This record gives sequence, C-alpha cells and structure tokens, in this order.
Amino acid sequence: MMTTILSEGVWTEVDGGNDTFQAIDPSTGERIEPAYPVCSWSDLERMAIASAAAVRHPANREPERIARFLEGYATRLDACREAIATMAHRETGLALEPRLRVVEFDRMLGQLRQAADAARDVGPDSWRLPIIDEATGIHSDRGPLGGAVLTIGPNNFPLAFHGVSGGDFASAIAAGNPVIAKGHPLHPGTGAMLAACAAEAVADAGLHPATVQFFHHCPPEDGLRLIGHPAIAAVGFTGSRAAGLALKAAADAAGKPSFLEMSSVNPVFALPGAVVGDAAGIGEAWAGSILMGAGQFCTKPGILIAIGGDAKPLLDAAVSTCGSAAPGVLFSAEASRALESGITAMIEAGADVHCGGNPADPGNRFEPTLLSVDGHRFLERFEVLSAERFGPVGLFVSASSIDEAIAIAERLEGQLTIAMYTGDGDDEVWDRLATVLRSRCGRLLENKMPTGVAVVPSMVHGGPYPATGHPGFTAVGMPTSIGRFSMARCWDGVAAGRLPDWLR
Amino acid sequence: MMTTILSEGVWTEVDGGNDTFQAIDPSTGERIEPAYPVCSWSDLERMAIASAAAVRHPANREPERIARFLEGYATRLDACREAIATMAHRETGLALEPRLRVVEFDRMLGQLRQAADAARDVGPDSWRLPIIDEATGIHSDRGPLGGAVLTIGPNNFPLAFHGVSGGDFASAIAAGNPVIAKGHPLHPGTGAMLAACAAEAVADAGLHPATVQFFHHCPPEDGLRLIGHPAIAAVGFTGSRAAGLALKAAADAAGKPSFLEMSSVNPVFALPGAVVGDAAGIGEAWAGSILMGAGQFCTKPGILIAIGGDAKPLLDAAVSTCGSAAPGVLFSAEASRALESGITAMIEAGADVHCGGNPADPGNRFEPTLLSVDGHRFLERFEVLSAERFGPVGLFVSASSIDEAIAIAERLEGQLTIAMYTGDGDDEVWDRLATVLRSRCGRLLENKMPTGVAVVPSMVHGGPYPATGHPGFTAVGMPTSIGRFSMARCWDGVAAGRLPDWLR
Repeated sequence: MMTTILSEGVWTEVDGGNDTFQAIDPSTGERIEPAYPVCSWSDLERMAIASAAAVRHPANREPERIARFLEGYATRLDACREAIATMAHRETGLALEPRLRVVEFDRMLGQLRQAADAARDVGPDSWRLPIIDEATGIHSDRGPLGGAVLTIGPNNFPLAFHGVSGGDFASAIAAGNPVIAKGHPLHPGTGAMLAACAAEAVADAGLHPATVQFFHHCPPEDGLRLIGHPAIAAVGFTGSRAAGLALKAAADAAGKPSFLEMSSVNPVFALPGAVVGDAAGIGEAWAGSILMGAGQFCTKPGILIAIGGDAKPLLDAAVSTCGSAAPGVLFSAEASRALESGITAMIEAGADVHCGGNPADPGNRFEPTLLSVDGHRFLERFEVLSAERFGPVGLFVSASSIDEAIAIAERLEGQLTIAMYTGDGDDEVWDRLATVLRSRCGRLLENKMPTGVAVVPSMVHGGPYPATGHPGFTAVGMPTSIGRFSMARCWDGVAAGRLPDWLR
Repeated sequence: MMTTILSEGVWTEVDGGNDTFQAIDPSTGERIEPAYPVCSWSDLERMAIASAAAVRHPANREPERIARFLEGYATRLDACREAIATMAHRETGLALEPRLRVVEFDRMLGQLRQAADAARDVGPDSWRLPIIDEATGIHSDRGPLGGAVLTIGPNNFPLAFHGVSGGDFASAIAAGNPVIAKGHPLHPGTGAMLAACAAEAVADAGLHPATVQFFHHCPPEDGLRLIGHPAIAAVGFTGSRAAGLALKAAADAAGKPSFLEMSSVNPVFALPGAVVGDAAGIGEAWAGSILMGAGQFCTKPGILIAIGGDAKPLLDAAVSTCGSAAPGVLFSAEASRALESGITAMIEAGADVHCGGNPADPGNRFEPTLLSVDGHRFLERFEVLSAERFGPVGLFVSASSIDEAIAIAERLEGQLTIAMYTGDGDDEVWDRLATVLRSRCGRLLENKMPTGVAVVPSMVHGGPYPATGHPGFTAVGMPTSIGRFSMARCWDGVAAGRLPDWLR
C-alpha cells in the first residue's frame, strides 16, 4: 500500500510521486514505517473524473444499496477494531483505552449505521423532506449534489471525524454522493486501513467502484485546485482556521458549498451566583475538560470568565487539578512549538502563568498549563488573549462586573459552544448575557462543560463564522448533518413513473 | 419623502446626500418627479447600528407580535393597492391589469400572510424545527441570526420580490430578524410607498422601530461595505449576475451567508417524440412564455433545444406568435442597449434572426425576437450563445441527435429551471437526459413552461451556482424559504425556564 492511492476501487500507484512522508509516534518522536506518497495533480484529476461516473451509475441511486454499503463498512471496520485502534493510538498518541478502541470506534460505527438507517428512510420525516402536492403536481425533495464531495478530516479524531469514515463521509454517502477522501498526514496508516475496509464494502454492495476514493496527502495548491474541478460538488472539512479559510476561499470562488469546522475557544462564563456557590466544583470541571485528549478537542473550553466577587477558589481548584496532571501528548512537534509560542504571546500580553507552560519529554508532550488575566486587560489585548490554543491550556479571566462580562461577550467571535454556570440569583445575568451570546454559538450550555458532543438528532455541532463557514448546519447528528450534502429539488408536472419512489 | 430614508422608524434626511436620481417611465422615456436621494456611508452605518438594538429588543422575540406586524402590513398595503399598483405600473411599464394590481399584488400579500402564519407556528413541523430530547436534556431549534438581514430586490417584480415587501423580506422577518431593505433605483416611488406602510405596521405591532429600515439607493462600494458591518448577519438578493457576484464576494469575505438569485436561461428540451407529436403547441407555448413580462422573468425559457427530426414546425409556430406580438417595454434604456448588443453578439456567433431584433419606440420598447442555430454551432460558441438575455428574446437550437443534446446538457451551468417536453417513445431519452439535468437545476419540469412560479411549499425557486449561490435553498415557498435566514441552535442542559416556549 506504500506508494498507492485508492482510485476507482483499486490501490494504484501515484503519478510521478517521488515525494513521500512518514507518520511519527508522538509519544516517542520516532518515525513509523512505511513512507506514504504525496500524490500529484494528475492523481487527483483522475479520481475526480472517475467520480463523475459514480454519480451517474444506476446502482448509486438505490437507497438500499447505499445503506448496505454503510452497514457492511461498519461490520468490516468492527472486525478490524484491534488493528485499526492500535494503529491510531500509535500514530496520534491518544489513549487506546477507552478513547480509541471503545469510545471513538463505537462512535464511528454508530454514525455509519445511523447514516445507513437515514439512507434507507424515505418517509415524510426523513432528510429527503419529500413534499407531495397532488393538487399542483409540484413535488419536492432533497437529493444528491450531482458531484463528488471532497472530505478532509482533522488530526484530533482519527476515526469518528476521518475523511473516509467520519461524520462528513457518512453524511455525504447517505445523501447519495461519491466521496473523495483526503487522509491526514499525521495518521496515514490509520487512513489506509479504514479506506481498505471501505473499498471492500463498496465492492460487496455493488456500488460504482469510484463511490469511495482515497488519497493520503497532496500539495496544498493541488487540493485547492481540486475544489474547482467540475466533478467536485462540495467540501467537508474539520481542521485549523488557516486551512479552512483557504478551502473556503477556493470553494466560494468556484460557487461550491463548503462545510467547514474551523476554530472555537468555547468560552465558559461563571456567573456571580455560581462563583459563590461552587467555585471548586467548577474549577475542577473546567480543568478536567481542558485535560481531555490533551486539550486537543474542538470543544475544549479554552477560556473561563468568572464574574464578580472573589473567584480565586475557582482558579485554585483548576490549578490544583492541572498542576498534578501528567503532561499531555500533542499530535506533532509543530503543535508543541505553536503552543509554546502562543503561551509566550499571552504572557507578553499580560497573562500570569499558574502552572505548566513548557514542553516535556519524551515526544511531543506538553505540561498542563493555566494562565490568568483580569477582564480589563483581556479586553485590551483581546486578539492575542482570545485566540484558540490547541493543547492542555486554559485562560482564567476575572471580570470585575457584569458589564465587563457583557463587553467581553460582545467581542466574541462565532463559537461552536458557549457555556454559562449559574447559581442563586443569576437569572437576570443569564438573561442579559444570553441575549448577546445565543446567536454567537451553535450550542449554548448551562452548568455543563462543552467537551462531550453527543451524537443525537438535537445536537448542533456548528455555529457562526469563524467557528464554521455557515450558521445553518451541524456536522454531528443524524439525519440533520446529511442535509449539508444535499440539494433542494423540485419536480414540476413530471410523470409519476419518472419520480423517485418516495414522491410517487 | 423626497430626500429621506426610513431610519429607526422615521423618515430622516440623508447625510450630505447631494446626489439624487429619478425614475423614468419606460413606456415613454419621460422622467418622473420627484428626485430621490443616494445615501452615504454614514446613513447606512446609522441604520446598521440601530438594527442591533432591534435584534435585542424583547418585543422582537415574540412570535405573535411578529405575526401581527406581517398581517398588519399586508392589510395596510391592501388599503393602498390602487395607488401602489399604479405607481409600480408607471415606474416599470409592467401591465397594471391583471399583472400588478391583481396577480403580483395578491402574491405579495399572500407571502406576507403566509409568513405571519409561519412566524406564529411553533409546532413540530414548523420552520423552527424544534427537537426536544428529554433523555439527554439537549434540545434544538432554528432561530434568528443575531443581526439584520440586508434585502435587495430586482427590477422585474416591484412588489412580490421587493426588498421591503417581497419573499426575502417576509422570510427574514418571520425568522425574527430586523431588515435593512434597499429599494430599486428603477422604482423608487413604489419602494417609498411600500416602506411607508411597513413603518406604520411596525409601530402598530410594537416592534422596535429599527425592525424595518429602508433606503433608496447607495454607491455600490458602500453597499458592499455594509455587508461587512458587524450588525449585518446575512444578505438576500435577486438581480443580475454581476451585482450578485459582487455581493457574494463581499459576503464570503466577511463569512456571512448570502442568498442570491442571479441568473438562469432555463433551457427547454423538446424530445424527439414531442417534436413529432405537438410541434406547433410547444412552439406557441414557448413563444408565449418568452413574451410574458416582456421576457424579463428570471424563469424565462431563453433557449429551446429541439432534438432530432424536422423541428421546423416548432420554430415556425414560435416565430408566428412572436412575430405578431407588439414590442415589449423593457425596464430601462440600458436594458434595451444591452439586449441589442447581446443579439448582435449572437448573430456574429452564427445565429439567424427569424423575427424582431430591434428596439422600438416610444420609450424602452423592444421587438419580440427569435433566433436559431444548429447544435454543433451552439456548442462551438457556447459562452455567447448560452448567455442570459433579459427581454423578449429566445434562441432555438436544433440538436441533430440525442448525443448532441446530451453534450449540450453537460455544458449547462446551474439553472433555476430546466424543462423537457416529451411524447411517444421518449422514456429512454428522458432517463438519459434527466441523469445529467436533475442536479443542474432546482426545478425540473415536464411538458410545462417554467415561467410561472407557484407559491406552494413544494416549490424550489433556487438551484446550483450560478443560478443562485447555494443549491440547498429556495427563495419562494413558505415556510421553506424562512430557513435561509435562521441559524441552527442547540440548548444543552439549559434550565426549562430559560428555553423558548416551543422547547419547554
């Protein structure tokens, strides 16, 4: 598999691909064999052209066949659970138990199976939104986009958000689109194993062989060019803001929908009654949330704003929890360097360090780190102090008044989540803050840290720009997330025999 | 009202607004008094800031109050029907009876009243999409965007698509957003009368006075700048592709959703069985559809592709109908000049003129015009021959074979509508063409011209780029069109008392 990509159902050599890359074990810093290919534009173009045939293949119009693929894929993955989870652990440094082998693996399988159910569902409440209007003969539904979806997953969920097995993949396939999935250069071995299962399941289900295509890596400019190819209909992406904005610009210029999960600091406000009521409990919960996955969750609560009074017990509890925790393993040496320079910038902007602050050995470890700053200073140096820092780092902000907290709320960019902790007497403060905060995030929480993202239909894992590219969608939750990769279709006066079954 | 804009509920003078413009009666070319102001950046900024207060005003969170405004507005408009329709007729040259006074007026009122019903509807099937998950305590719904919607209507529907009274307006208001509406420079008197009714209805309903603001015209660069203002959440636009793409670029750069209806040639394919079966009927229907509103409908079928055999009787019937029709009144002298040069370009590219081709007096009249070209030539000069031509002009394309028709289908850009006329033996051709065409348009029709757009829930008035900016939405049809101006919201663990009524 070393120098190959999955193109039209077969593992084929890349064109002129002399460039290769290798994964590195982040817990030791050691290279992992083998080397994987960086593919060239001709490889991407070949996959794009092949996907156009999948779009028009009659078998790919059959909901039952799509559902069978998704289920068969989940079954094959489950059979390879040990090998895949072990590989993902080695390549990412994330805990094998229970995180990768159980929690994230089951989430990946659950999403694929929920997507299968959704693909099969042609009822009035399904994602197809069928409307039958006998009186006018005008019917409507949602259907595939007419091109391939390019899916690009992040470094931090190598299974449940992977381009070839995650929520974007499952959603795009369930809506009837072929997928061209890009792997992640930090976990290529995991991607290759996932894609191998997908290819077998595609063949079993009798879908067009280009229904799922996969490549490991490409020069960034070729990836942006691929978005403009006529055979590509949309992009699904989870990752950094810089990469997301580049993809967004390319998709916008080509007039194609993009669904991008880019960045979020997930602010937590501790209201006055909560600070008085359970400072230690909130501080411990905050620190625990920061430590999860070594602080590399898109829903990590990077900033906690405590309002009024003496919030020192809250900070003390968080520092106690973080200060006694072992260093976390970051995904790459680059991430460790970026975090170190980010902390330096925060200190220069006036933040105090209470624990941690430094990289640690072996590999890409980093000490759990807590900083603090007062609300006045936070507002003065808002850009640098409110930026997302990927890793086990949190900033405690002491707001001297409700008005200062509201001033902070008004400066916030679009977020995936915003949480408020409340206690006695906080109803009016909640109302004032919620008026500002509700439209600044996809998910508003009370007395709860945002790190966990339940895969339920009522979940919104999305939010206003720049958390994502569009406030109307969620990346998590079936069948809601499928809508992203579908188009609105109307059938006006079309003979019944030519309509999809669910509109007859 | 002459030098004023509607800002925060009062008609106020524009800042430094020495620039003015006047409407022109397109049927005579005569100027219409009075002059109207081109407002400056400071006027736009003032409206944007005022709208932020409307966003947070408690009354604007009450569905019943929003519904009462929409109904009250419709009632006030109805009371001014004669005056408004007469003004719109004078400024646009569109027929007073039945088009403006009855058909479009009733459509405008109907949309506002349907939007009122939708605003009031908090049920499980409403646009709010409430999901109550008691087990997890995670609930979700759709809510307002947290900023004003900028609405910009077209020249061709001065009532039902007007920025201050049309479908985008009704949708944005129903979703709970304030609106800043831009009038159209070709019908300012109509806009002023509509906005006056809106302002009175806002006051009656007790909504914040900045819920509806209105300006006549602004320098284009200031309009683009307004989109980037923090108080603006989204843009709704119907108009030309050039203006739409400029708005899209501004909205994309600011990370804001834009809903743009930009351009469409609405191709009609006459399949072999249809050409043999009812050539004359199809030709007459096509010509009739082209003549509606002097060919200035966004759903005008600008190109008809007849497949195989002898399609001369179809062309002859269309030429007979068009050739005997009176010249149509275009909205502006500029439109007439653009059409004339467009026809010249088509002739230079190889099209033959069968009737019309010239401007006519008095005013901005233009002769109904039909051209023809063979399929081979059409494909050779596709760009110029397939471009949208606004006015009473159609291009007949004779495709020599089904393969040639499919080659044409594959070249088509995203469209609002595509129609196929079928007859005996056309089932296989339908299947082959529909495989290509289904994802290239929002609305697919059989044996029906696309000009009429029924306001029903199953309508999709939308389509892939560049027909619009996103294939997932419709601009016509309640409650579906409301979703555009709403965001996905999740409430995770939030106390019941803090939830909207429909999530308790």
